[in-house]
Amino acid sequence: MTLTAPTSAPAITDDEVAAIDAWWRANNYLTIGQIYLQDNPLLRRELTSDDIKPRLLGHWGTSPGLSFIYAHVSRLIQHTGQETIYLTGPGHGGPALVAAGYLEGTYTEVYPNITQDEAGIKKLFRQFSAPGGIPSHVSVTTPGSIHEGGELGYVLVHAFGTVMDNPDLLTIAVVGDGEAETGPLEGSWKGVSFINAARDGAVLPILHLNGYKIAGPTVLGRKDPALTRSLLEGHGYDVIEVEGDDVPGMHHRFSEALLEAYGKIKEIQRAARGDGGGGDEPKWPMIILRTPKGWTGPEEIDGVKVTGSWHSHQVPLSGVKGNPEHLAVLQTWLKSYRPEELFDASGAPVELVTRANPRGDQRLSASPHANGGLLTEDLDIPDFRDYAVELTNPGTAVESVRRLGELTAELYRRNPHSFRLFCPDETNSNRLGAVFEVSDRAFMERLIPADTKISHEGRVMEVLSEHNCHGWLEGYTLTGRHGMFATYESFAMVSASQTIQHSKWLEEANHLPWRAKVPSLNILLTSTCWRNDHNGFSHQGPGLIQNVITQRAEVSRVYLPPDANTLLSVADHCFRSRSYVNLIVIDKQPQQQWLTMDEAIKHCTAGAGIWTWAGNDDFVTDPDIVLASAGDVVTMETVAAAQILKEKLPGLKVRVVNVVDLMTLPRPQDHPHGISDTFFRELFTDHVDVVFSFHGFPGAVHQLVHGRPDADRFHVRGFIEEGTTTTPFDMVVKNKASRYHLVMDAINNAKRTPVGASELKAWCQEQLAKHESYVVEHLQDMPQVRDWTWQRG
Amino acid sequence: MTLTAPTSAPAITDDEVAAIDAWWRANNYLTIGQIYLQDNPLLRRELTSDDIKPRLLGHWGTSPGLSFIYAHVSRLIQHTGQETIYLTGPGHGGPALVAAGYLEGTYTEVYPNITQDEAGIKKLFRQFSAPGGIPSHVSVTTPGSIHEGGELGYVLVHAFGTVMDNPDLLTIAVVGDGEAETGPLEGSWKGVSFINAARDGAVLPILHLNGYKIAGPTVLGRKDPALTRSLLEGHGYDVIEVEGDDVPGMHHRFSEALLEAYGKIKEIQRAARGDGGGGDEPKWPMIILRTPKGWTGPEEIDGVKVTGSWHSHQVPLSGVKGNPEHLAVLQTWLKSYRPEELFDASGAPVELVTRANPRGDQRLSASPHANGGLLTEDLDIPDFRDYAVELTNPGTAVESVRRLGELTAELYRRNPHSFRLFCPDETNSNRLGAVFEVSDRAFMERLIPADTKISHEGRVMEVLSEHNCHGWLEGYTLTGRHGMFATYESFAMVSASQTIQHSKWLEEANHLPWRAKVPSLNILLTSTCWRNDHNGFSHQGPGLIQNVITQRAEVSRVYLPPDANTLLSVADHCFRSRSYVNLIVIDKQPQQQWLTMDEAIKHCTAGAGIWTWAGNDDFVTDPDIVLASAGDVVTMETVAAAQILKEKLPGLKVRVVNVVDLMTLPRPQDHPHGISDTFFRELFTDHVDVVFSFHGFPGAVHQLVHGRPDADRFHVRGFIEEGTTTTPFDMVVKNKASRYHLVMDAINNAKRTPVGASELKAWCQEQLAKHESYVVEHLQDMPQVRDWTWQRG
Repeated sequence: MTLTAPTSAPAITDDEVAAIDAWWRANNYLTIGQIYLQDNPLLRRELTSDDIKPRLLGHWGTSPGLSFIYAHVSRLIQHTGQETIYLTGPGHGGPALVAAGYLEGTYTEVYPNITQDEAGIKKLFRQFSAPGGIPSHVSVTTPGSIHEGGELGYVLVHAFGTVMDNPDLLTIAVVGDGEAETGPLEGSWKGVSFINAARDGAVLPILHLNGYKIAGPTVLGRKDPALTRSLLEGHGYDVIEVEGDDVPGMHHRFSEALLEAYGKIKEIQRAARGDGGGGDEPKWPMIILRTPKGWTGPEEIDGVKVTGSWHSHQVPLSGVKGNPEHLAVLQTWLKSYRPEELFDASGAPVELVTRANPRGDQRLSASPHANGGLLTEDLDIPDFRDYAVELTNPGTAVESVRRLGELTAELYRRNPHSFRLFCPDETNSNRLGAVFEVSDRAFMERLIPADTKISHEGRVMEVLSEHNCHGWLEGYTLTGRHGMFATYESFAMVSASQTIQHSKWLEEANHLPWRAKVPSLNILLTSTCWRNDHNGFSHQGPGLIQNVITQRAEVSRVYLPPDANTLLSVADHCFRSRSYVNLIVIDKQPQQQWLTMDEAIKHCTAGAGIWTWAGNDDFVTDPDIVLASAGDVVTMETVAAAQILKEKLPGLKVRVVNVVDLMTLPRPQDHPHGISDTFFRELFTDHVDVVFSFHGFPGAVHQLVHGRPDADRFHVRGFIEEGTTTTPFDMVVKNKASRYHLVMDAINNAKRTPVGASELKAWCQEQLAKHESYVVEHLQDMPQVRDWTWQRG
Repeated sequence: MTLTAPTSAPAITDDEVAAIDAWWRANNYLTIGQIYLQDNPLLRRELTSDDIKPRLLGHWGTSPGLSFIYAHVSRLIQHTGQETIYLTGPGHGGPALVAAGYLEGTYTEVYPNITQDEAGIKKLFRQFSAPGGIPSHVSVTTPGSIHEGGELGYVLVHAFGTVMDNPDLLTIAVVGDGEAETGPLEGSWKGVSFINAARDGAVLPILHLNGYKIAGPTVLGRKDPALTRSLLEGHGYDVIEVEGDDVPGMHHRFSEALLEAYGKIKEIQRAARGDGGGGDEPKWPMIILRTPKGWTGPEEIDGVKVTGSWHSHQVPLSGVKGNPEHLAVLQTWLKSYRPEELFDASGAPVELVTRANPRGDQRLSASPHANGGLLTEDLDIPDFRDYAVELTNPGTAVESVRRLGELTAELYRRNPHSFRLFCPDETNSNRLGAVFEVSDRAFMERLIPADTKISHEGRVMEVLSEHNCHGWLEGYTLTGRHGMFATYESFAMVSASQTIQHSKWLEEANHLPWRAKVPSLNILLTSTCWRNDHNGFSHQGPGLIQNVITQRAEVSRVYLPPDANTLLSVADHCFRSRSYVNLIVIDKQPQQQWLTMDEAIKHCTAGAGIWTWAGNDDFVTDPDIVLASAGDVVTMETVAAAQILKEKLPGLKVRVVNVVDLMTLPRPQDHPHGISDTFFRELFTDHVDVVFSFHGFPGAVHQLVHGRPDADRFHVRGFIEEGTTTTPFDMVVKNKASRYHLVMDAINNAKRTPVGASELKAWCQEQLAKHESYVVEHLQDMPQVRDWTWQRG
């Protein structure tokens, strides 16, 4: 931060008001045009029914407020040169943000066919909410946006993520009062408790209260303003309020409020960055802006109040095409902005309008921070081989995730401004605690001497909110930095909707050449269903896999490394990747280690492979049965089952296959990681039955192998929603996925039934019966993990 | 509410303090015993290593605070007879709530083997967190609980749901300060804006700040208390604060605070129910209780501060079995509660302890409100046939959901105290607006004359928060009332984790004979992916189906009615059902109607069936292809595809199957609704290829038909994550699920290739190419819905 740059601006002048008001009128005009018009874009002749789109889509209500704020933020930038991005919580205001980018010229730079003339405006109007055109929301296609605002609730979490380690950035986050009712939004005000004024940038939340959501008033829109102020002051903000609908009065008052807020931000940053201490918890400013919904629109239509009511939410005058009176109202409404003063003869915005635009990258629609791939630098990643587990024979159990924790600590060391870990209060519990050797937890609230590994300077993000963790990471990566979200597997479902919405963002961004690729969203699930046995059933659920695999193949990646070395190899790949959602699932408890680092790299590169040492396959003729697995605990059970079979039923030819990259299973035409038909047959043959032991719900494998040769021969064991507080081994028994179940499955489905098969099945039943009798007797000292000593041959 | 019952209690006496303190000590003793001891439960001999469990599981930190509050609430009940239930946000305090039920005698009533003597206490200890025993959380097995508290964030939403239309109920909701960081919890304070003091009961939130979550301080635990007060006052509460760790001082101060809060609740209710108006927004009281984490435990262990720090979160003294010093600390700690004063020679709690218990159903652990099935009355449901759509020939499109809206209005009329609809601001948008003829939206904030269909008396629940809607309905049904949660399909993922956790609750409750069945959780998704074309990609996602089908078959139901009459029949079934999660998916837009009411009833009863009129099957020989569908839009495409085939390729024998109950697809051994193998073959044959057109992600069908004869022959079209703001017909094209795609699929997979097949494929390609060229030209007037006139032969 160059503290010599202007940190304030003079009071707004009448000339500036004139320019801003012209820009705002132009924006409102273009907004309404996008919703209604397919022709006659500048009203250079009388409006006719033919000029009206046949299908009216879009949202007017929130738009004028959004463009009003935008115009004033632009003025602030003009005076201060402040690097700024603008996040639109009420994403329904898409046309206003599109219009802003158009008036700033960015839109034409990005989409050259949308020219700065009448023909361009006509295209701008026609493409809006039209097939083959652009969506109605602030979306991926909107220059300057990193936030869709479709599913409400995330504008503040995204905003706080953008400013972490971004000291020069100011992020304006407009919160709608509908959005303000959601849980995730309410939970995100606390972001200020984690922002360090010296090191991070600033978020300026603007709570835009226009009183209504789709069909009724909002809680904050009707609450006593003193209570709303009390609420936000309680969250730690210095609240500035502006209310009204009078123009130009509102220009003056809002401009003043914005300058006041900006001055306070700069004061806080100066105190923190300069000689002053700045105190524990600076009171960051925020603005409450109260304007009528549909501001500047028709007061009433057919005797119904529109402006200032929920009737202006979407398309007022929806019958305009077939109703001459409504058509006249629309024309009057459009003309009220005096388009003839705003666009020149060619249709380009006049200088009075463009005067309100900042220049170049300072335009909100052109900020590189909102196209974070442009700013992305490769992470400095240590050689993951340095963290390898050395295989011992017989093997000893290792907490695989600890190795990743050590690598992650090194990422913190090498990338002090561009890597963060986000975790709901479980970094240690998830065995990633090595990071605390490099950085503390971030916390700007009061600290006490007894506190350890927590400080104002810390950069490890812990807050007991999956929504905050996930959303912060999204904001962090979309502005070009790297990170990982680590959480309990079952509670990843809390933020599953965010995962899906982020996938959708990446899916669409991939198809826009001007959007540079951003670091991937890395999600690590390390307290998994099979070993959350101490926390019980509510903590046991592998549901996120089920959701990630439904998203488009171009962004979705799911990895199930069975041990430390495969985990390290997978993680290295994920940290280097761009614009994916990488889901990595591995348990944190001590677990068997299977592969040397060289083997692990080879295995992960292929995505799946035969573990020759685990089976007794001769590769001359087909095996009698294939035992396959994906996931750590289930792999242990599979290797154990193979060992039992080899020892007790040597006549049975068993092949053991492990899948580390789940997306190798679908066909190559269904997923880019899908292995070739040839390789698939090499692993699984095309006719031998496969007993597939899967970490998650069995249905996931069934759907992924569909289309592979004779998919019916895949018999999948997995988590079948059975659990409680019990022992790890009881968990695999409850879910019928224990080694004994796998042995019986193998025998039942094998091509041949060698001598001794029925005896072995009886023996397995006996083992399970013994186990059940332990359970019935509540034997506390029953085997916790049915582990065993194994040696690789 | 009998307003003559005592509405206050006298100040606590020293005798009462003695009893409450004894009860509390007994509870703490039993809590610690559950975590550590497998023998010597009353310390009647020196503690030895053998007495210690081999695996120490459980959470101490939050427990003493929970039992402290519990004891004082019990005293309030003793004096007032107040019907009360107790919801434990910090569910990790399981042992404290189990101990409370035990001390109240309820535990022994429900589980007679856990007797009120030393042997019973030993069993109580041994079963805790043990295989075959009980989970470590406040769980389904805990008498008096309707809230697991495993996944954090929902205690207040559940609490507010319990008191709606429950005027005599007081629900104590303890909010932990870890939980208080979650978005859903922060979003749920606003429940007071929807509670009508005259008609609903009261929630008393107790924010229990003990300063720490698993591994660090909490935001509210460290915030300036003045700010925390400001925050909660901003939410609309009258905040009462109690802080300390001194005993008996804390007994006096907390008792006084509780009486003050109770007095205020009664005053608000008297004003609202009596002659007084009560004002718009009563200031409901809440309590902030600040006590040390692990209160009454060891101050320090091995020089590390335990009490009052996060080190007491789980199991302090975790090495006690092998560490004699720790063993001694444990013995001293246990003895500090003076168990010899608390349990008699037999091991039963002495009278000094039991004196603190309310009697009978007034015990918090015995409240019938917390076993809501006991209070459940059947819903008074009108004859759904009265809302039938009469089929016309040719058919006209009808908004099916409007019929359900009319039925729902009648449910409101007939069940003015036991049915509610919960919807995030979309009741009208979802075509359920008929309910507003009977009841307004509920809203306790300020109203203005322009407001319509919203009032303090309204009982339709709209808040822009899926978390609140879902959670309120859970609380409402778990206390024995009926309801429905209607939401946009894609945003059902916001609350998917709640759906899963509620499923888990019902799954476990089913196996406890003492828990009576409760009304089902009915979820209606009516703004679906195929027709959220005006809102675009962020609003398009059928993900919830994918999650519901992973839950246990005994609770999971998914219905995809294709028209109004099937919807009515399905809804009637769901409203009558108990302890299920019923997911109903149908679009709100005008749609073709297929079945007469009689046919619909038959179809829904079977769950799936052949639509003979749609195909040209002669039922003498097998068809050449089966066209199947599940879902409304995809059924239209399927019937249209069949019609094209019949007209243009009459030589091809086409069968049309419709599936309304998705869970008919799995085998009967996998789901109780799974149809028999015989019926499955009647529908789908066992060898003819099936082109299955599915509403959701195709993988769902692939996993459900696994195990059916030759499942590989099912070729599924569905939502493949393609969408934007476009036309409805473009949506089915984008997802390769249009009638033209289905016709080509049928030809490609049919048993025979009749003359004309390749020409028909070419014709389909031509139709699609024409469509694409429309799109490329941005033709606003391209066909919105590729509808057509059809007649049933």
